[in-house]
Amino acid sequence: MEEQKLSDLGEFGLINRIKEKVSLYHSESIKGIGDDAAVIDNGQKYTLVSTDLLVEGVHFDLAYVPLAHLGYKAVAVNVSDIAAMNGIPKQITVSIAISSRFGLEAIDELYEGINAACENYKVDLVGGDTSSSRSGLIISVTAVGEVEKDKIAYRHGAGLNDIVCVTGDLGAAYAGLQILEREKQVFLANPEMQPELDNKSYVVGRQLKPEGRTDIVHELYAKGIVPTSMIDISDGLASEILHLSTASGLGFTVFVDNIPIENQTLETSSELNLSPITMVMNGGEDYELLMTISQADFEKIKGIPEITPIGFVTEDKNNVLVLNSGERAQITAQGWNHIKP
Amino acid sequence: MEEQKLSDLGEFGLINRIKEKVSLYHSESIKGIGDDAAVIDNGQKYTLVSTDLLVEGVHFDLAYVPLAHLGYKAVAVNVSDIAAMNGIPKQITVSIAISSRFGLEAIDELYEGINAACENYKVDLVGGDTSSSRSGLIISVTAVGEVEKDKIAYRHGAGLNDIVCVTGDLGAAYAGLQILEREKQVFLANPEMQPELDNKSYVVGRQLKPEGRTDIVHELYAKGIVPTSMIDISDGLASEILHLSTASGLGFTVFVDNIPIENQTLETSSELNLSPITMVMNGGEDYELLMTISQADFEKIKGIPEITPIGFVTEDKNNVLVLNSGERAQITAQGWNHIKP
Repeated sequence: MEEQKLSDLGEFGLINRIKEKVSLYHSESIKGIGDDAAVIDNGQKYTLVSTDLLVEGVHFDLAYVPLAHLGYKAVAVNVSDIAAMNGIPKQITVSIAISSRFGLEAIDELYEGINAACENYKVDLVGGDTSSSRSGLIISVTAVGEVEKDKIAYRHGAGLNDIVCVTGDLGAAYAGLQILEREKQVFLANPEMQPELDNKSYVVGRQLKPEGRTDIVHELYAKGIVPTSMIDISDGLASEILHLSTASGLGFTVFVDNIPIENQTLETSSELNLSPITMVMNGGEDYELLMTISQADFEKIKGIPEITPIGFVTEDKNNVLVLNSGERAQITAQGWNHIKP
Repeated sequence: MEEQKLSDLGEFGLINRIKEKVSLYHSESIKGIGDDAAVIDNGQKYTLVSTDLLVEGVHFDLAYVPLAHLGYKAVAVNVSDIAAMNGIPKQITVSIAISSRFGLEAIDELYEGINAACENYKVDLVGGDTSSSRSGLIISVTAVGEVEKDKIAYRHGAGLNDIVCVTGDLGAAYAGLQILEREKQVFLANPEMQPELDNKSYVVGRQLKPEGRTDIVHELYAKGIVPTSMIDISDGLASEILHLSTASGLGFTVFVDNIPIENQTLETSSELNLSPITMVMNGGEDYELLMTISQADFEKIKGIPEITPIGFVTEDKNNVLVLNSGERAQITAQGWNHIKP
């Protein structure tokens, strides 16, 4: 029998395989593997713990990612996971493994970005580890946050007829990545060429310096809204919709026409001959929030301009994308398929 | 001006450089960088957070470290950091980055060790991240624990005339590493040779499967002892003594004759022509605890056979090793030096 390959299993398959063998010993461990953050009952509140690993050559390419941006992003993506639980990040630890090709200035630049993010999100850098590495740079960030027990939002919990909402706009980070990859190829072909990023600052900025939406969490608190379910959009909207719908056992219907997409994202998509909907559904790294809101909170949501309703929750477990033409497509892990008539 | 090199700065230099630029925004962040774990006030108790990064080729050599042992050790060393704060570990997150040379069986073996450690220490695996890597295996573990506020032990806090104690025995893990390295060289020279580990099971076991001393923490609780300062012995006794003495602003005097060393460690040291004291002082990875205890607790300590008094705290800030000959040596970061008369 051939050994099963990791690549056949995929990341979610591997996570499920790990999760299956895990036993929990403490009743305070409210939520383990399988949400944006682990949830620990500390008596008064819930403590949230989330961790992300960023590996050079896998998650980032130092050919076009400045180290300060990388440091900022490493913090922001963990902040985003805490926000996705409707929590507020408070502390982080940062561990780095670095090969000898990096000098002290590089480390300083990286930590400049980390410290800038800490200041922006009011997060305390309280620990970490440093190591050499045989090749490249590896960053492991763990964020610790908290949430009042009655305010927590899990991936599960969406109710029938709830309103599906997203924050900000989508697809821009993927558009930015495509532009950066294109300019890298141009540069590799001709190092004299200057990158053409003039009218791409928004999409490139969204790729290089994403933000975790703690601002939205504060807005939700202020308006007295607790999302019935929530997740951050790190892997593309399609994948996140499937996570929430699977966790709640209901279906999501989403209207393309309602999905917020910036003009520069649309322009870039047409320039690159990519469908903007494909960029939104299959792309990733927007780090916006996807949430469901009870109908009763619909009026309150209107007061938060950064939140856009894009659909609703149905009893039929099919996840459906309603195209501008009125056609209905099936949302899949890889994006969406036209439904054959 | 030449760029300053990372290697000139060293790990502690780098940590200090990072620490200097850190601002803390939350009064709940009681202790940040600079102890075995970060300390967060959660209202009722302190939450402890510790993180360690294990990099293939830097921290472990898969030529002689079985993956299950590696998984166990990755958890144990973080458990050890929580124990060093006099706390009890409750949850961990485990992130791994793996190159394509590892199959699914390798991952299963690694998690077998992780799960065995979780069961032994009653720690819940609540999250993590998985990624591919361009080369080798990287494991990042974060442990979350808790401690009653009046039971916490920091690195600082040693008082004048306090008793210096260690748990278990020292030097064995380093002896085990030397044996494993020797057998690896033998194997590389002649792959037909079987490793000679028969009478080395104790020292090799101490290297491959160290334990975090949560059992000692429970004993301390049971006897009503709170160490005035504590640290785990990961880098060799000399380095840890300097950490505690610097943090408290006092000196430590330690008697070689009192340091607990197992017979097999002594035998191995003579076989390898290494001084056993050098192995204890400069070696590492014993993951025992070094602590100071108030004189008032001396009688109570006697009831815990796993704890051995090895010296006392002095006003004179010099850290002194009293040799068997009665000679006094200076304890330094790299071990100890004979004091010139």
